[in-house]
Amino acid sequence: MKYARFEHRDEEHYGIVEGEALLELDGSILGDHEQTGIRYDLAAVKLLPPVVPGKIVCIGQNYLGHIEEIGATPPQKPLFFLKPPSSLVGPSGDIIYPRTAVRVDYEGELAVVIKKKMKEVPEVEAKEYVLGYSCFNDVTERALVANDPFNLTLAKSFDTFSAFGPYIVTDIDPDNVRLKTYLNGELKQDDNTRNCVFGVPQILHYLSKCLTLYPGDIVTTGTPKGIAPMNPGDLVEVEIEGIGKLSNGVKAAK
Amino acid sequence: MKYARFEHRDEEHYGIVEGEALLELDGSILGDHEQTGIRYDLAAVKLLPPVVPGKIVCIGQNYLGHIEEIGATPPQKPLFFLKPPSSLVGPSGDIIYPRTAVRVDYEGELAVVIKKKMKEVPEVEAKEYVLGYSCFNDVTERALVANDPFNLTLAKSFDTFSAFGPYIVTDIDPDNVRLKTYLNGELKQDDNTRNCVFGVPQILHYLSKCLTLYPGDIVTTGTPKGIAPMNPGDLVEVEIEGIGKLSNGVKAAK
Repeated sequence: MKYARFEHRDEEHYGIVEGEALLELDGSILGDHEQTGIRYDLAAVKLLPPVVPGKIVCIGQNYLGHIEEIGATPPQKPLFFLKPPSSLVGPSGDIIYPRTAVRVDYEGELAVVIKKKMKEVPEVEAKEYVLGYSCFNDVTERALVANDPFNLTLAKSFDTFSAFGPYIVTDIDPDNVRLKTYLNGELKQDDNTRNCVFGVPQILHYLSKCLTLYPGDIVTTGTPKGIAPMNPGDLVEVEIEGIGKLSNGVKAAK
Repeated sequence: MKYARFEHRDEEHYGIVEGEALLELDGSILGDHEQTGIRYDLAAVKLLPPVVPGKIVCIGQNYLGHIEEIGATPPQKPLFFLKPPSSLVGPSGDIIYPRTAVRVDYEGELAVVIKKKMKEVPEVEAKEYVLGYSCFNDVTERALVANDPFNLTLAKSFDTFSAFGPYIVTDIDPDNVRLKTYLNGELKQDDNTRNCVFGVPQILHYLSKCLTLYPGDIVTTGTPKGIAPMNPGDLVEVEIEGIGKLSNGVKAAK
């Protein structure tokens, strides 16, 4: 199943994607819902971030190639930080380059969307709590992080620094999919989630021992090697096998 | 005005506190609301965290005494991090001491609750965007932070590590109130918000240049010197002049 969220005549709806069509749903994909019978042309609607999360939990330093690239050593436990929901932008939106920014990097990632309340869940059951998977771009003001680790949250919290979408796909194997990031059409990141230190079940189990995950919460799983800066005017695309491509322009702040 | 949120017969309501009475409201204090005419005895209801925030933004290293206590130097700009909304507990709840914890500290703080959408707002206008103020306990697993700054989010994200309440008070001067924290009745923190490096207008102005604050978002303003560990069985109380006292027991995880 492939879910989207979209705006049509100033109203927000969930829908099921079938080829080039979007089948409107009544209700939320996080709860009861049914098809209304209304069909849209997928290309004619404005896609939104596919859910509105209560929180966005991001795993850092998870791909072996990226750990090497930044001169770190593989962590013993998943490292995580939070991004504010106010930083979300959907597949139809631009990433706004802050006026004060020095170096703004893309970080292509696989995102996990939680389906049901999750607290202290064993690894073997973790996937039962997942609604599905999507593409995520964990945009980061790299110069701020380099100066001071206390700046990590600032560096990742600017509005539009969490690009997310286009769809939530329910039936992929999250621990064996190819992830690619393109900058202006040039392939910059190309890896497979099987090269992660921690797989999705391990991450969810670990997080659920600390905090409760709720329906709609997003957990991102780290970025592969190949991070690099973007500039206003660029186009950045995160593509994951079986999900699709998340495309965002980069625009200078007014 | 003094607002509370409470549970009565499994339903959640907002209310206005008048002495020992609670006047029920229809609607949300973040939008249109009016009195229903129903009165409760304040002591007879279960108080909840006074709002449900979209995000919790916390300022670190803001009181001069605390900066000295941890061996830091006053920051040039407000330092901030995020706590997940899932970590909230209200004035009727316990702080749960995690099974794996080594040292869990209280951090008494003044919390600001946002009233309207706030993006790039000048310092002089910042207070117009504030609904009111409350008490906050930014509970922290200190041993985790000491090991690795990347653990800051983990150390502060456990369920019940954000105690918040009991009321939102609209008419205090947030930059000149006394803040006290008691552990088992013993005064442990005693300072005034005028001893902060950054006042509320500066903090809100700074944050609003990076991220959009939305109605109900919580911004906490740092803790004074006197942080120390708590243990299961303890009672911790954060009291702010003009607001009231936030009391929480500490309980071992099951």
